[in-house]
Amino acid sequence: MDRPKAKCLPAGQCCPSLGVWALEAGISRSSVPPAISRSSAMVNEPRGNGGPGPRCEGSSSGSESSKESSRCSTPGLDPERHERLREKMKRRMESGDKWFSLEFFPPRTAQGAVNLISRSVGFQPTPDASLTPRAHGKGVKGGAPPGAPVQKETPHRFDRMGAGGPLFIDVTWHPAGDPGSDKETSSMVIASTAVNYCGLETILHMTCCHQSREEVTGYLHKAKRLGLKNILALRGDPVGDQWEAEEGGFSYAADLVKHIRSEFGDYFDVCVAGYPKGHPDAESFEADLKHLKEKVAAGADFIITQLFFEADTFFRFLKACSEMGITCPILPGIFPIQGYHSLRQLVKLSKLEVPQQIKDVIEPIKDNDAAIRNYGIEQAVSLCQELLASGLVPGLHFYTLNREVATTEVLKRLGLWIEDPRRPLPWAVSAHPKRREEDVRPIFWASRPKSYIYRTQEWDEFPNGRWGNSSSPAFGELKDYYLFYLKSKSPKEELLKMWGQELTSEESVFEVFAHYLSGEPNQNGYKVTCLPWNDEPLAAETSLMKEELLRVNRRGILTINSQPNINGKPSSDPVVGWGPSGGYVFQKAYLEFFTARETVEALLQVLKKYELRVNYHIVDVKGENITNAPELQPNAVTWGIFPGREIIQPTVVDPVSFMFWKDEAFALWIEQWGKLYEEESPSRMLIQYIHDNYFLVNLVDNEFPLDNCLWQVVEDTFELLNRPPHNEKEPEASDPAP
Amino acid sequence: MDRPKAKCLPAGQCCPSLGVWALEAGISRSSVPPAISRSSAMVNEPRGNGGPGPRCEGSSSGSESSKESSRCSTPGLDPERHERLREKMKRRMESGDKWFSLEFFPPRTAQGAVNLISRSVGFQPTPDASLTPRAHGKGVKGGAPPGAPVQKETPHRFDRMGAGGPLFIDVTWHPAGDPGSDKETSSMVIASTAVNYCGLETILHMTCCHQSREEVTGYLHKAKRLGLKNILALRGDPVGDQWEAEEGGFSYAADLVKHIRSEFGDYFDVCVAGYPKGHPDAESFEADLKHLKEKVAAGADFIITQLFFEADTFFRFLKACSEMGITCPILPGIFPIQGYHSLRQLVKLSKLEVPQQIKDVIEPIKDNDAAIRNYGIEQAVSLCQELLASGLVPGLHFYTLNREVATTEVLKRLGLWIEDPRRPLPWAVSAHPKRREEDVRPIFWASRPKSYIYRTQEWDEFPNGRWGNSSSPAFGELKDYYLFYLKSKSPKEELLKMWGQELTSEESVFEVFAHYLSGEPNQNGYKVTCLPWNDEPLAAETSLMKEELLRVNRRGILTINSQPNINGKPSSDPVVGWGPSGGYVFQKAYLEFFTARETVEALLQVLKKYELRVNYHIVDVKGENITNAPELQPNAVTWGIFPGREIIQPTVVDPVSFMFWKDEAFALWIEQWGKLYEEESPSRMLIQYIHDNYFLVNLVDNEFPLDNCLWQVVEDTFELLNRPPHNEKEPEASDPAP
Repeated sequence: MDRPKAKCLPAGQCCPSLGVWALEAGISRSSVPPAISRSSAMVNEPRGNGGPGPRCEGSSSGSESSKESSRCSTPGLDPERHERLREKMKRRMESGDKWFSLEFFPPRTAQGAVNLISRSVGFQPTPDASLTPRAHGKGVKGGAPPGAPVQKETPHRFDRMGAGGPLFIDVTWHPAGDPGSDKETSSMVIASTAVNYCGLETILHMTCCHQSREEVTGYLHKAKRLGLKNILALRGDPVGDQWEAEEGGFSYAADLVKHIRSEFGDYFDVCVAGYPKGHPDAESFEADLKHLKEKVAAGADFIITQLFFEADTFFRFLKACSEMGITCPILPGIFPIQGYHSLRQLVKLSKLEVPQQIKDVIEPIKDNDAAIRNYGIEQAVSLCQELLASGLVPGLHFYTLNREVATTEVLKRLGLWIEDPRRPLPWAVSAHPKRREEDVRPIFWASRPKSYIYRTQEWDEFPNGRWGNSSSPAFGELKDYYLFYLKSKSPKEELLKMWGQELTSEESVFEVFAHYLSGEPNQNGYKVTCLPWNDEPLAAETSLMKEELLRVNRRGILTINSQPNINGKPSSDPVVGWGPSGGYVFQKAYLEFFTARETVEALLQVLKKYELRVNYHIVDVKGENITNAPELQPNAVTWGIFPGREIIQPTVVDPVSFMFWKDEAFALWIEQWGKLYEEESPSRMLIQYIHDNYFLVNLVDNEFPLDNCLWQVVEDTFELLNRPPHNEKEPEASDPAP
Repeated sequence: MDRPKAKCLPAGQCCPSLGVWALEAGISRSSVPPAISRSSAMVNEPRGNGGPGPRCEGSSSGSESSKESSRCSTPGLDPERHERLREKMKRRMESGDKWFSLEFFPPRTAQGAVNLISRSVGFQPTPDASLTPRAHGKGVKGGAPPGAPVQKETPHRFDRMGAGGPLFIDVTWHPAGDPGSDKETSSMVIASTAVNYCGLETILHMTCCHQSREEVTGYLHKAKRLGLKNILALRGDPVGDQWEAEEGGFSYAADLVKHIRSEFGDYFDVCVAGYPKGHPDAESFEADLKHLKEKVAAGADFIITQLFFEADTFFRFLKACSEMGITCPILPGIFPIQGYHSLRQLVKLSKLEVPQQIKDVIEPIKDNDAAIRNYGIEQAVSLCQELLASGLVPGLHFYTLNREVATTEVLKRLGLWIEDPRRPLPWAVSAHPKRREEDVRPIFWASRPKSYIYRTQEWDEFPNGRWGNSSSPAFGELKDYYLFYLKSKSPKEELLKMWGQELTSEESVFEVFAHYLSGEPNQNGYKVTCLPWNDEPLAAETSLMKEELLRVNRRGILTINSQPNINGKPSSDPVVGWGPSGGYVFQKAYLEFFTARETVEALLQVLKKYELRVNYHIVDVKGENITNAPELQPNAVTWGIFPGREIIQPTVVDPVSFMFWKDEAFALWIEQWGKLYEEESPSRMLIQYIHDNYFLVNLVDNEFPLDNCLWQVVEDTFELLNRPPHNEKEPEASDPAP
């Protein structure tokens, strides 16, 4: 090492609370106001990264030998799922398919983390009070106090931003925020959550100054363990007057890149930062370029630049890089101006100069937030258009400041925001590299996918094509309820408003289920927007059966999961379609519910008539299991046929995992609902009674080409229950046989 | 060992050429005339053992713990496929489902072996000459000399006998016939062929006298290696005046049973012989029972008895066994009398006494073969009915003498012969224990299943549910052509009559294919009953497309494999159905053919129009491969949806194995067809030309719900070929675009 030690910055420019990577990445999380767009409602299906492609080209590149055995293991998914980030970039560059990427910083609070990654229930005034009928008396069903707040549900931010199809997101590293810890707000946890639970290709930033070699190595191992595959290697900002690298530590980002390559070989894709105007600490633009060259030579795969305001700045930088022999992709960093003060603070921190022409526009409107935001969008759009028109830019990187409106608007105007309604699979895929083979799941977790991902995170391999192949059927324990992505996201008071301050009877519980399905406000004027068994909004296809579901819930068949039968709809169907185009999707009708013992007894009588048609599993909390299905045999209930592929059967009713789901489903009564009430209170005891005495039932109608018979099964059950009791030994002549 | 050594029999009763196990099993292969029923034609689909059951109960018995991971790996197959023989028996006994089993002896000649296990082509006079139009001139198509012999094809005997649903077959051990060798006629090879290629649960007899412990152990290891799971342990017949057990060898069957159990634990199911009248060498009936008890105590699972003539003989034996504490299943050995002389010889060898009432009937008709056979059938039926009526007999064992008419007739009259047209899978399954997971195969070997089984015999595991899972994609080498079950079974002269004594042009080859499909005699009056690419008869479903196939073959699209598209027919469909009842089966249309380069060039033009619909692989003998399919991605072309199960996709178009099939398919031109002609002869050179220059093409129409478009693809190709050539730069205005 004969490069000079880095000099320290003057005190005051290194405020830890302002985010110490501000100089490198140009953004400080606390230098900007909190996200403003919570009420924005772009409701999209959760989706994986990139849309499904018509062909699976596999991760083995270019092997033309035709007798190889390496094959795609998940034929239904898009090709990108198996590619590392640099391969995705390469393919996009070859095809001329421009991309965008989004930078986020880790939130400061646990609630911020929940908002970033989890569905939250927010309250807002009823937009149109006339739609909410006045209550003419106490407890009138459907009535709500005039003007009562009505909740509006929005998908979490990662899902909203992921919906437009970013090639990747990145999460900044915040040394003061314990970034490598297991805290809900740590960079590590946010990034791994984005990968594992939101299915986003993710780059984790990592700085090296003020950290020992061992610490850095530990973080990298942890990142690898958590499924992260990409690192943005930064030096980070020195703290204090003068500093020297730690003994055995790193002085420069290039050292970190070398370290990653020497310790982890080719495992990570490594990105480094580029400074179109030169790094403020650098002796000169040329010296900084030399450092960049060193970072790339050390093993970086691509470059993301600091923000800049004029396209020519970037073009000059690009030309200089090219002359230096830097050939890797260079992605311009775009910052849509979102406010006068945030711009000033940013500029101060990053020592960038705002061009006079921008100052000239902004100064006169500095107190008009909306006008500045609109200008910021216009300015970013025109900058991006100029960059794209040059043909020199394969993708655009956006500094979002965790806000979405401006960036989304810019991307939409550029035509880069593409909400592809096609789902690669019926459920949201995880981007964890271990899960790349995952293409079948039990149906039970359909409304709690994060719980499923969490509980199977220790699996060594995932079922590939057939559930029976799973070598790790054991599910994670339930002890992890405390984890924030399994906890109910809404405050206790809001849940009580939805699910009842006081429960007086089993029927009052039935009504909660019915209101959830109907979307109508309950008697207190609140909509029931979630139930303990759903951490995702109601699936679109559920509305196909809404009327039937409402009717049976009001009568004590408390449905928590269902799907209609589908006999060969195109894979492009907006409601039930999934997978590559040109295919056909199929489903067997499915219904899952809690119900009382007497209903189960009648149901079992009725099911005798459907013995060859309907498979059932009926289980109580103690695990008493009544079934007519071969015990260990999964039943495929969703499958798809596609051109040039094997069959994909992504959803099964699996008797083995059903017993694990049963534990979770019963526990949710107590953990998420019962515990809202005082111990020994009548409401608590009612929930406890249901938990102890109800059965969990699932039904599959195997005759997918015919009309769904499950509603008839339920109707027959009600009819049997309503029949007046009679002497069993002497049935009345007019009484039809059960 | 304080049992007395076995005494030798008087010389003359131990003639090796008469089959030395005659005394134990009661049958000598050379003591009876050769099989008489070659012309009997019961054409059935090849089938596995037992019909499909509605549920797969798995091989793990009785584990009620619901969180286990052991599951059936082949959900579409009948439960018996995963059970060992004694478990099958147990389940049948519990359900009261009576069974039968069949004993065969190994043939003496290679041709006999081929007849037993392989399709053969036999010639016989045209039954009705009026059906064969007279030829009015030389070379008139379809004409045949009046009264010319016409071949009749019959499935091989194992398939014919297997069609009735025996629980198992057994193959006798013939010490003089080198029974443990790799000869085509050895007991070992015949038994393993029955298991591997005919899908029959099989018991291999094994004797121990005159064999060292090491020899016996070696045979048992070999049997295990070949997939045999069941041994009938016998002492065998001593040779010579006096004998003693070999040093360290075995004196009694009980010693062999003990040896099997000590060396192989529970691997084999072991059967022993019981003698309702006592073994002729035994000191007394009681002493023989004691020996039987010892054999069972040593670890035998069940008993098959020597033949007997009266039910009371068996009942007395059963009672005596019960009193001795023998509790395992005891299967009565049934011998339908088939002729006067074979009966006499048998009786002499086995020292059995024919009851006077049978003698009284037979003696007067001893020169009337048909009368004796009819009597034998009557007598066996009435004996079996008496046995079954007692409720003491779970199954009947038949000494077939390798003849089928009498035994089949008896079984049919008893109602035990059940030809279940349902197939567990679209292809004939193998009964090798290693292959129990096999439920998907490439479509290419559909007409050469034995070749496929042979070439994959070294695989460690089989694709389960998805072809891509195979860990052993490599196929066996082609060097094994010499093996009798891969060789053409018909003599060269017969093949020349079918395929042409002299080939004058490519068109003369086209005509051979067309005659094969039409079933019409060729210009020499011979039917073309096979082609090199088919070792099974034409599939029933092929007739659904016969007209189209005929038309395209006459024009040089030489089809060797095809299937129609099927959109959800019941699994019980007699032509295309397979798998458990209550399911639906689907197919994508498939067409595979050889054709000339110019046809391929036109085809490729046409296929551009079908790019999104039709997947193709086009390859020549050198391996030049043209495809629009993801290279390593299999395409499922047959699949089934069943109640309570995962999807089963038993047939795929697999690009990897297609390259292995290509080698085999091209080699068959030369090996089986070209080599019929003299080197350098015009016919040989013509076949060589086709081999060197034609392409092998496969096409899949992915739109299974629509009408099969592959015929249109071919028609479009012919149309393009027939279009008059024109200036490429100035197409005529009236010329439609290709």
